[in-house]
Amino acid sequence: MGDLEIRPAVADDVPVIVAMLADDPLGAQRESPDDLSPYLAALDRLNGDPNQHLVVAVRGGRVVGTLQLTIITGLSRKGATRSIIEGVRVHADERGSGLGSQLIEWAVDQSRCEGCQLVQLTSDATRIDAHRFYERLGFTASHVGFKLPL
Amino acid sequence: MGDLEIRPAVADDVPVIVAMLADDPLGAQRESPDDLSPYLAALDRLNGDPNQHLVVAVRGGRVVGTLQLTIITGLSRKGATRSIIEGVRVHADERGSGLGSQLIEWAVDQSRCEGCQLVQLTSDATRIDAHRFYERLGFTASHVGFKLPL
Repeated sequence: MGDLEIRPAVADDVPVIVAMLADDPLGAQRESPDDLSPYLAALDRLNGDPNQHLVVAVRGGRVVGTLQLTIITGLSRKGATRSIIEGVRVHADERGSGLGSQLIEWAVDQSRCEGCQLVQLTSDATRIDAHRFYERLGFTASHVGFKLPL
Repeated sequence: MGDLEIRPAVADDVPVIVAMLADDPLGAQRESPDDLSPYLAALDRLNGDPNQHLVVAVRGGRVVGTLQLTIITGLSRKGATRSIIEGVRVHADERGSGLGSQLIEWAVDQSRCEGCQLVQLTSDATRIDAHRFYERLGFTASHVGFKLPL
């Protein structure tokens, strides 16, 4: 499949990232690939925050995956720093290639480098395959995730 | 019960915050109230980050509650900003007083002020009473929360 590089996302990657966010049963209802301006503004905000890592996975010059890793310090658990993974997407052509695991392993390694004691994420209750995937990678489904749209 | 003030936490609040974090079936195993140094270091990190709000609820000069609100921008959902609530604690003397709801309502209002489109949190699967509490406040238990200790 060729070498894989995982690197910070730049503005030129945004169209492909948004296409991947939208190419998903849940994302299709939430995204607007025809208007990239809110996504470019969000990338500017992310790039100004040292606790944010929006990355893309690149193979053979093509962006084939993405995730967002946020580093969150806090007082709980003896002042532990934790990280949160959001927005994991793998291009349709790459599903089953192991790329999802490589992205999560990157996020776990990066979290360890930044002194995190815990990595966490939430997955929609309907994404049964994703739940099995995270459990295979050593995550425990110990929590219930609540959301309130504003 | 007297007037309630919700304000940013300062170093003098840390002993009470840590005592509340530890006065909890899960927290008791995780915290070290006898050594405050890691908590004070974490407070310094939080205070340097404009996306972090560690607050205390004060009634009659006593700290009686706490929570941490983190603002997270991202590309998903048309560049939506979301917030995450962590470390919600109410002093044993105040349980049942409505203070928990007031803290969450503060966090929701603050999230709205900062342009968030979504508030989210996770709660340990064993905290059944907390789940009912969040559902009463309008949250939906739509996700599974995964954790990986490092």
